[in-house]
Amino acid sequence: MKRQKLLVIKIGGNIIENQDALDSFLKDFSKIKGPKILVHGGGKSATQLASKLGVKTEMVGGRRITSSENLDIVVMTYAGLLNKKIVSGLQKYKCNALGLTGADANVIVAEKRPVQFVDYGYVGDVNSVNSKVIKGFLDLEITPIFCAVTHDADGQLFNTNADTIASEIASAMSKAYEVSLLYCFELKGVLEDINDKESVIEHIDLEKYKVLQKAEVIADGMLPKLQNCFEALQKNVSKVYIANAEFIKDKNTKCTTLTL
Amino acid sequence: MKRQKLLVIKIGGNIIENQDALDSFLKDFSKIKGPKILVHGGGKSATQLASKLGVKTEMVGGRRITSSENLDIVVMTYAGLLNKKIVSGLQKYKCNALGLTGADANVIVAEKRPVQFVDYGYVGDVNSVNSKVIKGFLDLEITPIFCAVTHDADGQLFNTNADTIASEIASAMSKAYEVSLLYCFELKGVLEDINDKESVIEHIDLEKYKVLQKAEVIADGMLPKLQNCFEALQKNVSKVYIANAEFIKDKNTKCTTLTL
Repeated sequence: MKRQKLLVIKIGGNIIENQDALDSFLKDFSKIKGPKILVHGGGKSATQLASKLGVKTEMVGGRRITSSENLDIVVMTYAGLLNKKIVSGLQKYKCNALGLTGADANVIVAEKRPVQFVDYGYVGDVNSVNSKVIKGFLDLEITPIFCAVTHDADGQLFNTNADTIASEIASAMSKAYEVSLLYCFELKGVLEDINDKESVIEHIDLEKYKVLQKAEVIADGMLPKLQNCFEALQKNVSKVYIANAEFIKDKNTKCTTLTL
Repeated sequence: MKRQKLLVIKIGGNIIENQDALDSFLKDFSKIKGPKILVHGGGKSATQLASKLGVKTEMVGGRRITSSENLDIVVMTYAGLLNKKIVSGLQKYKCNALGLTGADANVIVAEKRPVQFVDYGYVGDVNSVNSKVIKGFLDLEITPIFCAVTHDADGQLFNTNADTIASEIASAMSKAYEVSLLYCFELKGVLEDINDKESVIEHIDLEKYKVLQKAEVIADGMLPKLQNCFEALQKNVSKVYIANAEFIKDKNTKCTTLTL
């Protein structure tokens, strides 16, 4: 039986934290036909709120050390301000959006990241995604909008990386759908030369990934992103793209396609 | 055909803003059998956050004048912090809670309160409740948890009174269910004598309501609450109670029952 197609898109700060860019993205997103899921971060807004409240923000390897106070700020910003801005913005374009954390309808269960060298505090690693409940929403023609908050099913909320959430959702949904996963960010894709924004590597497979890693073309923030991509592919996601939001409007826009 | 029973409960600050009281309430709430809906406010937390952020809070007749900045604070507090605390707290007790604003799945559409003597800013009056979508969630054995935020279906979020949301949801759901509406607050019910907490008026009908109003027994904050109750009864809600949270645990606890 041919599986139905499902598109999972993750957007980051460059879109969320610019009102015009966000509105333009939501308009394009609403026009995508068929079932779709949106995942968003919002770290910059959380850091801004923390600063206004005089709460210290500490990052290690791009990840937020999440104290109890930081968690409240993350939940207020991601699940409150940003998620509801996106949901109401999509309703304007007749896309029937439903905002979710992992706690809502128990869709994503996580556990506290084990303390090795660093104690990240209330940061959760995903254990399971309830694909049945998410499919239930999609079957009602509802578009789930996930923010980067999960829970442990025992009363504790967690801050969880949005790229990882997108990858885990895409993987879990692959049981029932033919899933494409699209990471939208500020560039057009993975660059051969970081100083040349047009030097997009159009195709990366596992072998090329290792070569690029060794050559140190891929480094810093791009490493965990690519890791999420290949994990998703290994868990039966059909296609993964790293692209600019323009790609949603025009499929001919240059981007990076990833395959195993 | 006999309609299925549905319980709509509204809780206020006395429960939400005390961690122990909240946990105890959520435990009791999770044990209620059959379909149920929870509606919560959280004004005190919003005022506290506003104060920390140096944003002025202005109230007129118990209602918050909601500037754009205040709206962000309301959304962060109600839809973020408090709603997710409640949802994750219920998941702990195996109640499959789903947090909602009116924008999520387009469940409650409101319009800006018309400016007469006071411009309340981004305060919305409820126009319609999508009972079909809510029933869809209940049929999936999901328990909707509403915070006091609605939208205009055109991209604008609104701050909306939680008592009113509870009343409007109860009324809308009465098409498909036999609905009981319970307002939980700090006292055991409407008091005959404000200085005697045991002087609960056990039954108020429309006639008695008018008598009490004239005698000025009911005044201030209790007036709009009772108005919401009678509006719900007039719109086919079966039973309305004003009670303390203890009432959920023990149905023999004294409370005020309202009928037409």
